[in-house]
Amino acid sequence: MNNYQDIREEAYENNMQLPKLGLVLFTFGNVSVADRSKGVFAIKPSGVPYENLSPQNMVIVDFDGNTVEGDLRPSSDTKTHAVLYKHWDKIGGIVHTHSTYGTAWAQSQRAIPIYGTTHADHLTTDIPCAPPMDDHMIQGNYEYETGFQILNHFQEKGLNYEEIEMILVGNHAPFTWGKTGAKAVYNSAVLETVAKMALLTEQISPDAPRLKDSLIKKHFERKHGPDSYYGQS
Amino acid sequence: MNNYQDIREEAYENNMQLPKLGLVLFTFGNVSVADRSKGVFAIKPSGVPYENLSPQNMVIVDFDGNTVEGDLRPSSDTKTHAVLYKHWDKIGGIVHTHSTYGTAWAQSQRAIPIYGTTHADHLTTDIPCAPPMDDHMIQGNYEYETGFQILNHFQEKGLNYEEIEMILVGNHAPFTWGKTGAKAVYNSAVLETVAKMALLTEQISPDAPRLKDSLIKKHFERKHGPDSYYGQS
Amino acid sequence: MNNYQDIREEAYENNMQLPKLGLVLFTFGNVSVADRSKGVFAIKPSGVPYENLSPQNMVIVDFDGNTVEGDLRPSSDTKTHAVLYKHWDKIGGIVHTHSTYGTAWAQSQRAIPIYGTTHADHLTTDIPCAPPMDDHMIQGNYEYETGFQILNHFQEKGLNYEEIEMILVGNHAPFTWGKTGAKAVYNSAVLETVAKMALLTEQISPDAPRLKDSLIKKHFERKHGPDSYYGQS
Amino acid sequence: MNNYQDIREEAYENNMQLPKLGLVLFTFGNVSVADRSKGVFAIKPSGVPYENLSPQNMVIVDFDGNTVEGDLRPSSDTKTHAVLYKHWDKIGGIVHTHSTYGTAWAQSQRAIPIYGTTHADHLTTDIPCAPPMDDHMIQGNYEYETGFQILNHFQEKGLNYEEIEMILVGNHAPFTWGKTGAKAVYNSAVLETVAKMALLTEQISPDAPRLKDSLIKKHFERKHGPDSYYGQS
Repeated sequence: MNNYQDIREEAYENNMQLPKLGLVLFTFGNVSVADRSKGVFAIKPSGVPYENLSPQNMVIVDFDGNTVEGDLRPSSDTKTHAVLYKHWDKIGGIVHTHSTYGTAWAQSQRAIPIYGTTHADHLTTDIPCAPPMDDHMIQGNYEYETGFQILNHFQEKGLNYEEIEMILVGNHAPFTWGKTGAKAVYNSAVLETVAKMALLTEQISPDAPRLKDSLIKKHFERKHGPDSYYGQS
Repeated sequence: MNNYQDIREEAYENNMQLPKLGLVLFTFGNVSVADRSKGVFAIKPSGVPYENLSPQNMVIVDFDGNTVEGDLRPSSDTKTHAVLYKHWDKIGGIVHTHSTYGTAWAQSQRAIPIYGTTHADHLTTDIPCAPPMDDHMIQGNYEYETGFQILNHFQEKGLNYEEIEMILVGNHAPFTWGKTGAKAVYNSAVLETVAKMALLTEQISPDAPRLKDSLIKKHFERKHGPDSYYGQS
Repeated sequence: MNNYQDIREEAYENNMQLPKLGLVLFTFGNVSVADRSKGVFAIKPSGVPYENLSPQNMVIVDFDGNTVEGDLRPSSDTKTHAVLYKHWDKIGGIVHTHSTYGTAWAQSQRAIPIYGTTHADHLTTDIPCAPPMDDHMIQGNYEYETGFQILNHFQEKGLNYEEIEMILVGNHAPFTWGKTGAKAVYNSAVLETVAKMALLTEQISPDAPRLKDSLIKKHFERKHGPDSYYGQS
Repeated sequence: MNNYQDIREEAYENNMQLPKLGLVLFTFGNVSVADRSKGVFAIKPSGVPYENLSPQNMVIVDFDGNTVEGDLRPSSDTKTHAVLYKHWDKIGGIVHTHSTYGTAWAQSQRAIPIYGTTHADHLTTDIPCAPPMDDHMIQGNYEYETGFQILNHFQEKGLNYEEIEMILVGNHAPFTWGKTGAKAVYNSAVLETVAKMALLTEQISPDAPRLKDSLIKKHFERKHGPDSYYGQS
């Protein structure tokens, strides 16, 4: 059981952030963390309350969704994680939650418009919303197809998963990712906050304009461009 | 006082979950837990603050609403609990709260539309809303009739109480139930979260469509069907 | 300083409930408690943070608003409290807050419609909203006139202060009262919850009907009528 | 490192208030505190989590935005602070947050209407909202120009920064200030509360009137006029 100790601990620590950040009720969420050198990821076991989690009960799964190590059944969303790891080779962590405001936007089947700099500090486009899947995908290998629904939506819209680290799946809920599990968790909290601000913005002014391009560019580059000056280098 | 110790403790523990989950203000809620082998249930005493509860001051009541053991008066909603236990013989716990979003939907006299998978993970229909009672029922044995209002609404709509473990009573507030007190409490928290998400969904998109049948079926079966794969078997 | 020790402690304890119940930001609220045998009340000193309060720094004031004992200046709302104690001789405690939802209704200058049983458990009418005062009252002895604005609104509408223990003052914020300071604090929390539920109810269904008379009567009598059966007798 | 110890500690303490007051997620905010006798201010380092802050890692910056002492890079908003300190010589502390409701109003590009006394206790006008900057200002020295956008908006509208200690920057978020860092933090919390109440007010009554002049004047003078009687003199 000493294999994969690093990703077990990292997955455990990051899963425990979800209730602390107010992003999950009961077990409605999960974090995974990948070890690309070994071709596996550690993920929360299915339906186990957060207070019973430990590094040791994280489940180790390969990028085809097969359990490699662990006595418990992995999260029911495991195949979605596997598909994303397999096809997007720069991501090291994935988070799925049913956070309240993010989920409400997903249920509304609307992308979240970019209304301000809080949003633009993190991505330069609306937060995308993939449409609900076709019935044959739902009836088939559902979680596996959910991963492809995300991949396909990025491809169709010409989006770059290294720049846009989050999506809503229509009628369902948010998925986020990043180079590490910690970054993916961070993105989940950002998405929830931006989702709440966007709804409030529309309530205050139904005709609120989207952020203009110059401000989008400026804020994103402050944090992410070659001359970024946010944070400590 | 050693009789009924199991359901006293179970009712106490589950009542104490209500303030922790943010579902009650002051004493606006109650949980009961049944022992079907003895034909009784344990319920919160009326109007006693949560910080003063103990297993020993839970009141033991039979399925006709008569106090069997206990010095305190049982919850004013006791007869509603009794009616449900008497007629629905598979339930082991009942919860009543005035949780904020659930109560707002009840006051609006609308069933909560099924807008997403968070909802579909728990039930395959809208969360039903029984209409307010007729005046003669209100003026009569009110809490007893509240139980029948719930039973009748399930019968009229052809709903199955083992599949749909929650209801709103119009102008009043939610009731939930389950095989155990813990499941009934869980359902109360789910109802409150789903109620909030549904309102937000309508605010984001007033024309948001209900979840399509294929997704309803898929999500429910993930958790509840014969081939369920959520949680640990 | 041993005089008035009972009401000093009672006022202190009840003031400390306001931040615990989420009803105040900083010092935006105050509780007073009366000793009718001595014709005085104890009230929070003005602008002192809750963490610096103690029974000893409560200020003792008579029913004309004159300080009887205490080194600090009493709450700027003291004269409003004095007027209510002087004219309504059955009340023993008063609370003023700027709680978020109650204040929003006051700013809207609307009475809070009675939409459900949570409301009816506490009063049988809408929560009244006194109109903003005339300019000459504002420019004169403002806090003193605020008390009369409340008294006059009850008189004009034929309301009974022993049955309806709360009011909104238009453009301003809620006042509540009761036989004790604890009851007045309880009423402040009830008002805030009912205010939030009423707004959500209108958002879910703009045409939501007011609660029908039979239900109003039933719920109020469960808690307050001669045959009340809520709580322990 | 013993220079500037007072403002280091004051800036540290006030930065730590932001998460306690619920005004920031992660590092989305910063407080600075000035020492006018030395012509410098202490400000949060950029992108450092609140739990890792200490008085010693605050950065000391002059009023032209040049770092005077400190190993870390100062907040990315430092130049905005510098411009305000340089041109408004009575302010001793500045706060920038992305607090939820304040930011939603900024995104809506609307000033926050003065709807009640909670607002009037702090300022006598709507909370101003500067328009988004022109593209050439954004593309140039952005944070420096943000400071001028604030200064210019006050000048154009004839506003007095000693009376109105807060502004929204359109599409961005709030800035507040005051004679001390503590007052600037206080103003940030007031702005967030007033912003939430104003939105709720419009939801309850879309035609809610602004507060009338006599009440605006009265409430402001209670706290701030020559005959103020709020707080302890």
